[in-house]
Amino acid sequence: MNCNVPTDIVFSFTGFAMRGGQTDTHHDGWGIAFFEGAGVRHFVDHQAAIASPVAELIKRYPIKSRNVIAHIRKATQGQVALENCHPFVRELWGRYWVFAHNGDLKEFNPVLSGSYRPVGCTDSERAFCYLLQELHARFGDAPPGLPQLHLALAELLPAIAAHGTFNMMLLSGEALFAHCSTSLHYLVRQHPFPTAKLSDEDLSVDFSQVTTPQDRVAVIVTQPLTTNEQWTAFAPGELKLFVDGAVQEAPAT
Amino acid sequence: MNCNVPTDIVFSFTGFAMRGGQTDTHHDGWGIAFFEGAGVRHFVDHQAAIASPVAELIKRYPIKSRNVIAHIRKATQGQVALENCHPFVRELWGRYWVFAHNGDLKEFNPVLSGSYRPVGCTDSERAFCYLLQELHARFGDAPPGLPQLHLALAELLPAIAAHGTFNMMLLSGEALFAHCSTSLHYLVRQHPFPTAKLSDEDLSVDFSQVTTPQDRVAVIVTQPLTTNEQWTAFAPGELKLFVDGAVQEAPAT
Repeated sequence: MNCNVPTDIVFSFTGFAMRGGQTDTHHDGWGIAFFEGAGVRHFVDHQAAIASPVAELIKRYPIKSRNVIAHIRKATQGQVALENCHPFVRELWGRYWVFAHNGDLKEFNPVLSGSYRPVGCTDSERAFCYLLQELHARFGDAPPGLPQLHLALAELLPAIAAHGTFNMMLLSGEALFAHCSTSLHYLVRQHPFPTAKLSDEDLSVDFSQVTTPQDRVAVIVTQPLTTNEQWTAFAPGELKLFVDGAVQEAPAT
Repeated sequence: MNCNVPTDIVFSFTGFAMRGGQTDTHHDGWGIAFFEGAGVRHFVDHQAAIASPVAELIKRYPIKSRNVIAHIRKATQGQVALENCHPFVRELWGRYWVFAHNGDLKEFNPVLSGSYRPVGCTDSERAFCYLLQELHARFGDAPPGLPQLHLALAELLPAIAAHGTFNMMLLSGEALFAHCSTSLHYLVRQHPFPTAKLSDEDLSVDFSQVTTPQDRVAVIVTQPLTTNEQWTAFAPGELKLFVDGAVQEAPAT
């Protein structure tokens, strides 16, 4: 979720968490990370989201954030363990970066120098460490602007995606990058706000009652969360940057 | 807390959290990190611990861990913000490291290369980044054994402590290092287990009812948490390593 005003994710998370063991088979852990200024609240659990006391807290406690990544895990590589739960959080250029991956990378064993090393044993954390290492190698200690970062990711991601399925999200501060390999959808909620109805639980929210006309919220998911809104599918290989709840133009190459 | 079996921290945290705004003035945020295997559960909040819904969860939900660091913050440097809450978590040698600091470092501005950069603006996070950078510089990409690490920290910490008050804890996996500058106390609970009574709240626990004779739990704090147990004060400048709930011998220099 990427927004122009701090927004709580209770509605979306409620539907999403149902897929962590109830309406879907992603029951091998879950996690969520909320940016708050430069800081991050990071919750991970190796229990299924539907059975997790921490997930209960997230559903009840409306943490407001402009940038959130949540993930439910179906273990394809790496055992069910806390260190293998997404999203992962690391620091580069004095900022936290948050990463989550849906999919499976085969024979992806990049050379990792000492600066970012995986703690767990997933293909996903390897991909994250590799991305940060390569971004650091390209730009050194001076963080690039968003267009330069966008271009660098557009160059780096296809080589990773060549190893398998690589739907992923990468978030730092106010910029959320989403890359589709096989399945990713997005939606921008803005004025006039609809009543949205979850597809995984009998729950609706009239967003016009809890928003102002200036609010804008982008929600990006592998599979649409609501039944009565128009979700836009990413094309395979597509990379999009979201800032302030809006899709940004791809930079000129 | 450092233990030889997974132990919940509910009793100690209940008393400790009272100091986050009720029985003491450390009300500028709080945090706690639990190791679980190689993974870490990390909770931070810029709200006072006594008013935090996340602290409520920790008090109710007995997360069991062998290694935990908790911190309540009184802001001396850096505003009240999530990115300034301890403990901090970073990765080195493919392991997570957790760090918390009590005290205040004056004019501590070490040269930080690109590998570990502070996200917030506290003296504490600077000290943590500096420590990891220097450990990496000494040992390269090959993690040292615990005695070598102990010796390296014994050399590195006094230079930081020369800048002010530096009571600190550094934890990775199974080893907890605690350094006293002005105030640190510890206690090892083991068979026969006592009934312990909190000093900050009217609460007692008979640990003999919830333990086995093999259990051993070291609790290290700036100020003793219970009134009826014998806490041992660290000497100023003292560094201790705890493993499996026991103080380790200092390695020969």
